[in-house]
Amino acid sequence: MSAHIDMTSVLDQLRQALGERVDTTDAALDAARADKSGHAASGRPLAVVHAASISDVQATLRIAHASGTPVVTRGAGTGLAGGANAGTGEIALSVRAMDGILEVRSDDLLAVVEPGIVNADLNAALFEHGLWWAPDPASREISTVGGNIATGAGGLLCAKYGVVRDAVLALDVVLADGRLVHLGHRSVKGVTGYDLTALMIGSEGTLGVVVGATLKLRRLIPGEVCTLNATFADVRAAAVAAAAVTASGIQPAIMELMDATSLANVHTYLELPAPPPGAAQLTVQTDGPSAHTEAESISAVLQHSGGTVRVAATPEEGEELLRIRRSMHPATEKLGMSLVEDVSVPRSALPDMFDEIARIENQYGLVIPTIAHAGDGNLHPNFTFRGDEVPDVIWDAASDLFRSALRLGGTLTGEHGIGVLKRQWLADELGDDQWHLQQQIKAVFDPTGILNPGKVFAR
Amino acid sequence: MSAHIDMTSVLDQLRQALGERVDTTDAALDAARADKSGHAASGRPLAVVHAASISDVQATLRIAHASGTPVVTRGAGTGLAGGANAGTGEIALSVRAMDGILEVRSDDLLAVVEPGIVNADLNAALFEHGLWWAPDPASREISTVGGNIATGAGGLLCAKYGVVRDAVLALDVVLADGRLVHLGHRSVKGVTGYDLTALMIGSEGTLGVVVGATLKLRRLIPGEVCTLNATFADVRAAAVAAAAVTASGIQPAIMELMDATSLANVHTYLELPAPPPGAAQLTVQTDGPSAHTEAESISAVLQHSGGTVRVAATPEEGEELLRIRRSMHPATEKLGMSLVEDVSVPRSALPDMFDEIARIENQYGLVIPTIAHAGDGNLHPNFTFRGDEVPDVIWDAASDLFRSALRLGGTLTGEHGIGVLKRQWLADELGDDQWHLQQQIKAVFDPTGILNPGKVFAR
Ligand SMILES: Cc1cc2nc3c(=O)[nH]c(=O)nc-3n(C[C@H](O)[C@H](O)[C@H](O)COP(=O)(O)OP(=O)(O)OC[C@H]3O[C@@H](n4cnc5c(N)ncnc54)[C@H](O)[C@@H]3O)c2cc1C
Ligand SMILES: Cc1cc2nc3c(=O)[nH]c(=O)nc-3n(C[C@H](O)[C@H](O)[C@H](O)COP(=O)(O)OP(=O)(O)OC[C@H]3O[C@@H](n4cnc5c(N)ncnc54)[C@H](O)[C@@H]3O)c2cc1C
Repeated sequence: MSAHIDMTSVLDQLRQALGERVDTTDAALDAARADKSGHAASGRPLAVVHAASISDVQATLRIAHASGTPVVTRGAGTGLAGGANAGTGEIALSVRAMDGILEVRSDDLLAVVEPGIVNADLNAALFEHGLWWAPDPASREISTVGGNIATGAGGLLCAKYGVVRDAVLALDVVLADGRLVHLGHRSVKGVTGYDLTALMIGSEGTLGVVVGATLKLRRLIPGEVCTLNATFADVRAAAVAAAAVTASGIQPAIMELMDATSLANVHTYLELPAPPPGAAQLTVQTDGPSAHTEAESISAVLQHSGGTVRVAATPEEGEELLRIRRSMHPATEKLGMSLVEDVSVPRSALPDMFDEIARIENQYGLVIPTIAHAGDGNLHPNFTFRGDEVPDVIWDAASDLFRSALRLGGTLTGEHGIGVLKRQWLADELGDDQWHLQQQIKAVFDPTGILNPGKVFAR
Repeated sequence: MSAHIDMTSVLDQLRQALGERVDTTDAALDAARADKSGHAASGRPLAVVHAASISDVQATLRIAHASGTPVVTRGAGTGLAGGANAGTGEIALSVRAMDGILEVRSDDLLAVVEPGIVNADLNAALFEHGLWWAPDPASREISTVGGNIATGAGGLLCAKYGVVRDAVLALDVVLADGRLVHLGHRSVKGVTGYDLTALMIGSEGTLGVVVGATLKLRRLIPGEVCTLNATFADVRAAAVAAAAVTASGIQPAIMELMDATSLANVHTYLELPAPPPGAAQLTVQTDGPSAHTEAESISAVLQHSGGTVRVAATPEEGEELLRIRRSMHPATEKLGMSLVEDVSVPRSALPDMFDEIARIENQYGLVIPTIAHAGDGNLHPNFTFRGDEVPDVIWDAASDLFRSALRLGGTLTGEHGIGVLKRQWLADELGDDQWHLQQQIKAVFDPTGILNPGKVFAR
């Protein structure tokens, strides 16, 4: 009962400070419970605050801090780890409406943006200046730059052009108690004090709210891209071929691997003729002034590794080849719910990791369609299931998958984050000592534990 | 008196645990007081421990932790901020003897090394595999990889090939109480928990002792380099030209700027004919398959900016051109002691920063020979002086310099670190709130304050 009274007063305070930015409609409260992971918070949050400015964020956090109310920051809610899901008694703080581009400098190769801008919208604007921000999650049309930063997002182009942590110079952050700090600087270099900018990247809303970002840009790559694919008898052969490309020293812009099940699924989905049974595929794109010679060298490596290679004659044909890979997500959705996993291993361990997946399929009686960013060793095994809840057998298999990745020198999550879905395994990877250090760092930023509680670290 | 007794017992414990690795010779104790900054600790340390293994480091820290004895970690002692200087009552922990290469993987583009290996020795070994580790401080022949990591070192090639923070995958760290933690992973991607690897980079021995590093390597760049220089009427013209090169979109591997005083000094030192009075110089190197066309385009930009350009006909002639820049340090040493500063600004602000330096020279009646890594906006103004102590007027001028860099969106230190010399200005850059956050993070790693106390944060 007293909790109810407190909550009412928190809501009153929010309304007083933020007026119509405080949204308690059923639709808004329901939407804030879930992201794209398939997981949803059990209850509904107290309110959704649609912040339009830094001072809106500060006002929200001051009220939350004073009242001990949990705050779950949300960008576009496309996360795959449950990190943005807000439940009973929590404030969902959406920064989606803070979507301005404050500055673009082509001489300094930087842009200053608000966190809510969608990745693709930013890149469309940068294109006019001959620039781009390299992080390119497959969700770039729907996810925010702030969300990309908070998850440390990756994408297809990372092996060549880097991940988010390579592409952020400075961050403006509102702390748990509403204070605003400026981390990093506009210069390329800088080693003053500890690198808190890097610490914020991938912190999943547990250390502060990103309200501004100074991004490191690249110039558009001149020349036409060149795309090819190669079909192999099985996934191991494709993985060995991908490792051979990396070992050859040529750096493709994109190198994606689809195993037999995912390849067959997508062909069904796109109504294309079925691929040979068991066949797996690599799709490779080269770019820059040497795109064509590089594509030729890669073709040779792939053929030598037993692949049947098809080089796109035109950029349009190239897009067709890539469309197969890009249709993985919608094709999988047709099969029901799915838990999209995200392990990452050293590139040379890719074939071994596929062996592990085959073993796990066998052992647990599952089919696990898998794609991989083969250029950087990041795999997305998809565990599909019927119903609302991930069945226990899938968690058992996923747990086995995580341990296999760790054994091979890899990690639980290459780009999606821990959120709620993987917190149970966090200490397995970090070790107890590091896990405690990380919890204590969390406590430095958030002494009363109001920032995304229960995410990353199990409660 | 009781302090003396304690210290004796600490020394006894160290000797018991580490035998002849504990060095109390006058020469060792004196050497450990200073790095290359010109600053030295006022007293001599208790002992120098020459650690040969991780367990030596752990044993030292266990004893230090139990007895509350400060520990100053040292690599090669080439630092320019006083960070490795050990004084009265402190243990100097040298990891210089831990210099093994444990693993080189050309398929995964990584190497696992001990911290004491000298940067150039590592690169000589990697060369055999067709690989290199990109961070290239001018001190690469004499500084250690562990020191490079602990300072977040930069170098000449950073604008194109990145700094230390772009080139480390994982670190093994001994904590203040002797526990060993493994941070990061061998995979290219990974977002599990907070990025403590990044937090350690540039932490100057205040958070833990780096005892192992998994480094991200590059393949050797094929083709011949192409070198040129361009002489300008004054330093502003050279800085504007450098900004024009950056803005043109061509990325040189090296782009170094020397102002009139430094250029004239080096010519005297090398016994070359004097350059025209007031003349400043840019030295540019391009590399890779397009080295020659890129050099031509850059020549055109520099000529258009008023420069007199000389393109080296052969790699040997190119080395001659670069030798002028590389002789800056020995040439300056001839002039007496010097305080080498290290501000960094956004690249477009380079001309303005040189204007500020001219103003400061005027205002304080000083001559400040300055070189800059012009490709990334990092400047090294050299304050030369006679005697052992930096005169007050130089600190006043340096203070003015720091504030100018901050005003232009830059930072106190691009690559040398804070150490003891710049801790007084740390809060000016970080702001009080961030400064306190950083101190609390330090306390998480080092609750009793034994790791390099008084460095980075003023006591
Ligand atoms: C079809 C599809 C494809 C995808 N492909 C990829 C891919 O290729 N690579 C990849 O990395 N991810 C991918 N994702 C996952 C997801 O898009 C990314 O994690 C993305 O970065 C999340 O951005 P968002 O704006 O939706 O953040 P949200 O889902 O709203 O939030 C994600 C996390 O970040 C926190 N957060 C968000 N904004 C802020 C802020 N401003 N300050 C502090 N914390 C904040 C939240 O609290 C939460 O913990 C994909 C998702 C889908 C649905
Ligand atoms: C001629 C000359 C040129 C230089 N040029 C450059 C340059 O171009 N770019 C540049 O960035 N720097 C340059 N420097 C500065 C210096 O060489 C670098 O800072 C270098 O990275 C220091 O390495 P070191 O092994 O000498 O470390 P040290 O001087 O021994 O230590 C430096 C700091 O790191 C800490 N430390 C060292 N090893 C460890 C470890 N294993 N674990 C934890 N902490 C540790 C120390 O406590 C100290 O705070 C130059 C110096 C000289 C003398």
